[in-house]
Amino acid sequence: MTVQRGWNFLQTPGPTNIPNRVLNAMHTPAVEFAGPEFQAFCTSLFTDLTTLFKTDGRVFIYAANGHGAWEAALTNSLSPGDKVLIPETGRFGLSWGDMGRTLQIEPEILPNDWRSAIDPADVEARLSADTNHEIKAVLLVHTDTATGITCDVAAVRAAMDAANHPALLMVDTIASLMTTDFRMDEWGVDVTVAAGQKGIMLPPGLAFCAVNEKALEVHKTSTMPRGYWDWTYRMNEEVFYMAFCGTAPEQLLFGLRAAIDMLWEEGFDNVFARHARLSSAVRAGIDTWAEAGALELFARNVDERSNAVTAILVDPAYDPVHVRNICRENFNLALGNGLGKVAKETFRIGHMGDLNEPMVFGTLASVEAGLKLAGVPYKSGGVEAAIEVLTAS
Amino acid sequence: MTVQRGWNFLQTPGPTNIPNRVLNAMHTPAVEFAGPEFQAFCTSLFTDLTTLFKTDGRVFIYAANGHGAWEAALTNSLSPGDKVLIPETGRFGLSWGDMGRTLQIEPEILPNDWRSAIDPADVEARLSADTNHEIKAVLLVHTDTATGITCDVAAVRAAMDAANHPALLMVDTIASLMTTDFRMDEWGVDVTVAAGQKGIMLPPGLAFCAVNEKALEVHKTSTMPRGYWDWTYRMNEEVFYMAFCGTAPEQLLFGLRAAIDMLWEEGFDNVFARHARLSSAVRAGIDTWAEAGALELFARNVDERSNAVTAILVDPAYDPVHVRNICRENFNLALGNGLGKVAKETFRIGHMGDLNEPMVFGTLASVEAGLKLAGVPYKSGGVEAAIEVLTAS
Repeated sequence: MTVQRGWNFLQTPGPTNIPNRVLNAMHTPAVEFAGPEFQAFCTSLFTDLTTLFKTDGRVFIYAANGHGAWEAALTNSLSPGDKVLIPETGRFGLSWGDMGRTLQIEPEILPNDWRSAIDPADVEARLSADTNHEIKAVLLVHTDTATGITCDVAAVRAAMDAANHPALLMVDTIASLMTTDFRMDEWGVDVTVAAGQKGIMLPPGLAFCAVNEKALEVHKTSTMPRGYWDWTYRMNEEVFYMAFCGTAPEQLLFGLRAAIDMLWEEGFDNVFARHARLSSAVRAGIDTWAEAGALELFARNVDERSNAVTAILVDPAYDPVHVRNICRENFNLALGNGLGKVAKETFRIGHMGDLNEPMVFGTLASVEAGLKLAGVPYKSGGVEAAIEVLTAS
Repeated sequence: MTVQRGWNFLQTPGPTNIPNRVLNAMHTPAVEFAGPEFQAFCTSLFTDLTTLFKTDGRVFIYAANGHGAWEAALTNSLSPGDKVLIPETGRFGLSWGDMGRTLQIEPEILPNDWRSAIDPADVEARLSADTNHEIKAVLLVHTDTATGITCDVAAVRAAMDAANHPALLMVDTIASLMTTDFRMDEWGVDVTVAAGQKGIMLPPGLAFCAVNEKALEVHKTSTMPRGYWDWTYRMNEEVFYMAFCGTAPEQLLFGLRAAIDMLWEEGFDNVFARHARLSSAVRAGIDTWAEAGALELFARNVDERSNAVTAILVDPAYDPVHVRNICRENFNLALGNGLGKVAKETFRIGHMGDLNEPMVFGTLASVEAGLKLAGVPYKSGGVEAAIEVLTAS
């Protein structure tokens, strides 16, 4: 094995490049987790986290990953036998449904082409047909990292309202939060699921549920067995450390403090604009390569393409794994693998978190070099196209 | 001021990008500097350092920067009033001479065009004319970071031998060591000067003198006043901590241990080959831009171009500072300023240390974008040219 030198370009769709400032904040000894100082620190964190979700609701922090937050959302607000509707956004909506099935929830998939966003009209039609209100929740993935497509959450809410349906709207923002705008309260989201290792720039290990009043009301009558994930248990004001159901993940929380500070300093709108700009540059590079006919952007519609990750569809004559292996071995560049039903024909470039222009340029040029070495036909000039995008005023 | 995100591309000619492994090794509490464990650690370091210089001589480690090592070399082996000959390699040879003047040494500059390496025949002619052997040392800079030119040290030694002249050969390898091959003993170098913050990938703060038997002999009769730098003082075997003339720079030494291990693991020849490959890619990019006539590679001769840094000469109609400022402000990319007599018309790209392909691609694309925004004419396609170089088998 060759020794790798220089930065590891971790252009997977999570975990993402962790800023040294976050790592340094975590480089701190353990503290007394029941002490007043740590309690005050956490109280401000819980409050400050609500700004990321744009909610006046309540945020729960779990020592867990995004799958843990999925389970927390389901177990706290549903009961065994409940039906949920899952508009098919790609791999992750389906997986959320699979997890629901293990918890005795009955997922119904609203089928959709993975290459375009879901149609809110389909949601409205299905919910309108559910006259007995058997569907208790709509589970929606904001940005599916398998496809690189971002759905219109507000439009789904409008569809639910148009159907006059009482189901909860639960949204997975694991890949989208802090890469693109998300407005929990304004868009009428009841439960938001998130995790730390993508736009929030943390090491994996923290998951979040943001919950509004309606969801907390439903929670009271939900009968799903739950221990670790239980919102009621974690809302105990008397015994603070119950907020984490045991030992708090202290160092990850120190890192979260630094990450929130960094996001505030840059300004959320600037963070989103940076992600939009950099992802446009990535797409311009891919569109250039695509002119040779051997690959193309997976997401068909321009305005549905994600700020966080881009999937690339490769002609079956070529193997995306080969391209990824070449990039890893020759250029210290990690790319995302294909997932689900498009596992064999796609690969992905993650572009979220602590990212800037030269990192995008270096990534694109290395992918272009990887295509060359793998013998995948491409039109050269992807980086030049990205330079055009990033120097346009 | 805009908030900068992502990695800072520090493509100055030192300090260079410091590997996390080195930073982590330094993240260690202070230790007892006179204790047996630390002494054993340092003893192995002194031995292992000789492999970097390819010498059987002795290496001194200073808590200092490269300028400190310059002074150490001069004060330990010369006497007030001594003459030294300095083949003009660029800014740093002249500065070494200026420092000598403050120490009552008389530098004589052997003039040379900064855009090509020195001619060993000039050294031979000058030394042959010095029939009284008034010149006590030749001070040679292996790679001058102002010009990006690397001299042929062995050829200078051969010229000195041809002149049958007893002067010491002192070589500054601050920018060259661990970016290109250097063979102290084989090339007949008597004193080598180096520092940690370039090819050795350390934070600034460590300087080195590697010294052979001949230099140690001359040292015995040298009358230059010296305290901190004194080799004799530091060779005291009885009192180990005198090796550092007081408190040892412990954390930097922990970092040095990690850096040497990394260089050994990669293999010196692989390290040099990587630097050669990556610097060729940088030059291919610059040569492409140069076709528009507004800039060119400063170093005229292909085989004299350095593995460590490349200087770019810009048409006087354009301001290199403007390009550098744009790159810093827009792309989080730091480039080297012009120095000495070419300060106003050059800028520099450092490419030494912990560097890989995507870092070079990202740098080149950002410089190209910077040229565009600064209105400096260039032929686009610099990155494509670099991709060609780095995918050639």
